[in-house]
Amino acid sequence: MDNQQQSSVSGVNRPRAAEHMALHGLSALVATTPENINYILGSQLRASNWTMQIYAVLPQDSNARPAVIIPTNRLGVIAQMGISGADLYVYSDFFVEGSIAGKASTPDIDLFYSLMQNTTSHAGPVEALNAALKDLGLEGQAVGVDEMRIAPDMLAKFSEGLPGGTAMPAYKLFRQIRQIKTPFEIERLRRAAQLNEAIEQQLIDMIAAGVHEKDIAEHYRLAVMKAGGTPAMTAVGAGPRSALPLIENYFREIEHGDQVRFDLCLQLDGYWGDTGRTVVLGEPTPWMEQHFAAVRSGWEQALETVRPGVKASEVFNAAVARVQKEGIPHYRRQHVGHAIGLELYDDITLSPGDHRVLEPGMVLCVEVPYYELGAGGFQIEDTVVVTADGYEFLTSMERKLFRK
Amino acid sequence: MDNQQQSSVSGVNRPRAAEHMALHGLSALVATTPENINYILGSQLRASNWTMQIYAVLPQDSNARPAVIIPTNRLGVIAQMGISGADLYVYSDFFVEGSIAGKASTPDIDLFYSLMQNTTSHAGPVEALNAALKDLGLEGQAVGVDEMRIAPDMLAKFSEGLPGGTAMPAYKLFRQIRQIKTPFEIERLRRAAQLNEAIEQQLIDMIAAGVHEKDIAEHYRLAVMKAGGTPAMTAVGAGPRSALPLIENYFREIEHGDQVRFDLCLQLDGYWGDTGRTVVLGEPTPWMEQHFAAVRSGWEQALETVRPGVKASEVFNAAVARVQKEGIPHYRRQHVGHAIGLELYDDITLSPGDHRVLEPGMVLCVEVPYYELGAGGFQIEDTVVVTADGYEFLTSMERKLFRK
Repeated sequence: MDNQQQSSVSGVNRPRAAEHMALHGLSALVATTPENINYILGSQLRASNWTMQIYAVLPQDSNARPAVIIPTNRLGVIAQMGISGADLYVYSDFFVEGSIAGKASTPDIDLFYSLMQNTTSHAGPVEALNAALKDLGLEGQAVGVDEMRIAPDMLAKFSEGLPGGTAMPAYKLFRQIRQIKTPFEIERLRRAAQLNEAIEQQLIDMIAAGVHEKDIAEHYRLAVMKAGGTPAMTAVGAGPRSALPLIENYFREIEHGDQVRFDLCLQLDGYWGDTGRTVVLGEPTPWMEQHFAAVRSGWEQALETVRPGVKASEVFNAAVARVQKEGIPHYRRQHVGHAIGLELYDDITLSPGDHRVLEPGMVLCVEVPYYELGAGGFQIEDTVVVTADGYEFLTSMERKLFRK
Repeated sequence: MDNQQQSSVSGVNRPRAAEHMALHGLSALVATTPENINYILGSQLRASNWTMQIYAVLPQDSNARPAVIIPTNRLGVIAQMGISGADLYVYSDFFVEGSIAGKASTPDIDLFYSLMQNTTSHAGPVEALNAALKDLGLEGQAVGVDEMRIAPDMLAKFSEGLPGGTAMPAYKLFRQIRQIKTPFEIERLRRAAQLNEAIEQQLIDMIAAGVHEKDIAEHYRLAVMKAGGTPAMTAVGAGPRSALPLIENYFREIEHGDQVRFDLCLQLDGYWGDTGRTVVLGEPTPWMEQHFAAVRSGWEQALETVRPGVKASEVFNAAVARVQKEGIPHYRRQHVGHAIGLELYDDITLSPGDHRVLEPGMVLCVEVPYYELGAGGFQIEDTVVVTADGYEFLTSMERKLFRK
């Protein structure tokens, strides 16, 4: 399989992954979190409880096919999702009877039947993982294991068979590899950001006196689900509640003169969208105008600073200094943005302690919010991809203080 | 705080927890998975990514208050959710300005402001956890840590300060404690099961020729969300697709004569609902009648067997034997039900290898499904609580082969 072909079924950047594995002397990486499994397979494949073990193996050799380790009862899901880019290794008993010869069927049933017939069952997840590595010719070689979603007793059992008896923890390595997005990933992130914005516009349209924050949040969640996504943090805060950073509960009917802060998060095909805006119902007060202008100015400064070769911390420092200069002298902030991808916070944050250098292909949410309890809060958040000479927006909504 | 009061804000069974901790010489348990955190706090409190650490501490002493360890930015969520049954320990920078003195506010803002003023920030999650244990007088004592959702490097750092340098893995211990449900939990499980059934009835009402599986699944998911729940596995399989055990994708328009198998899972306030039925559009064939009767008979046998003192495996053996005798001689199955609670599969399954004894207060989903590729599948699944002399249903829908 060539890399081009591989990149069309999942987000994985195999040359970059191979390079990072080589650097650590690893012959394969084992993904255990849904995010890293999705990175390899191109599909969500979630365990239904903590003891259920699902792994995906990414060989260092870019020509070798990935493998996936699942309980037998997940074969039907594999068939329905059309996951075809990996070899399957199963464990645990699961009984399905019958035969499809000459019967009414559908392609997913045909594939499921074929998988049930042709897949050998292993004694457990570690035995299945070892079989996959053996078939790849990697038995007993050094591998990295995403340590965040493997049961510790399974990790210990697997490590016993390795040289030195330990697998290298690889969650951070996966995140480093995922820093530079492939075209497949940028397209998915674009779709997630644009879906988020389209629904955000509907929320802005809903704003009127007497409308409850809860109704707006519910509209968001249902609209995301109807579009095939999964809604997550849905910050809809009106009036004094616009000053609350994270919002998980809703108490207020919107009143004339309220500012409403939106910070909206969703997942679409595993990739995150995270955008935000601020809206005023009626005429903004001078305080609102001035504070929004300061925040917007800092946000512009952040974007003016984003380009390859610049440190994440430089973007932070420039943006915060600008907000302080432009109207909020006491402005403090822990970051002015974060990488986004298969995790809401991917690797690299635009923060004072992150001195890593921006590179083309990184995708960033840039946000310079301000929260003042007893007064109000402001949000402007957009998603950009770093290009050879700057950045390109994945979003297109106006960047203003919206008025209704 | 007395136990009665505690049991009104969360599901935790403190006497049972204390007894199990004493058995292992532990002075406290540390929850790290959302399920075990919810068990202690009575509210969902999810980390937004894998590196974010959230813990809850349950002291062995039933008179001591639990503690919760969160990033500072979660204080607002604590305030909005009204989580009041635990002391708070925070870490990491987060800036919110302003003062609420004399300003328009709401109770959640007042509480958030007060928490921001009065909560000391710690250097990191392990430092915050150690501070909580110190305040409880448990510094350096043996504790159990739910090992499934703590970053391994954090667990290692925490363990260094303990006698022997290791914390006892406690995920399984939490599950053992959670085997016997408190009245708080039974009430939440009843609500989850009844919501699930109410929506399942709507799905049955929707069944007609030309209706797509996808529309039925979407109706389920939106209805669950509207009711404040979270939809999970939504198996809606029509005709030959009724034979697929897990369904995550939808391909078929219902036709006259189809059987439709439902197996529906949701979470409500963190507690799971999982019920299922089978429906035929038109007249069932003799094959359908016969196979449903066998499955239904096995399901009845399982319930007739459920009572305190009986082994889980005895329920399994009785049910499978009955299905084999009543019309499906080749019937095989890996389990005929599972405990349900904060996890979809709580501890104890009605399976051949589980010889643990049923006790009053256990909540079980009893299901005896049959899947035959090329033919069809049958489901009947209900939730019961084990009582002193048998069981009580948490569900009330008719247990028949539905016809439309």
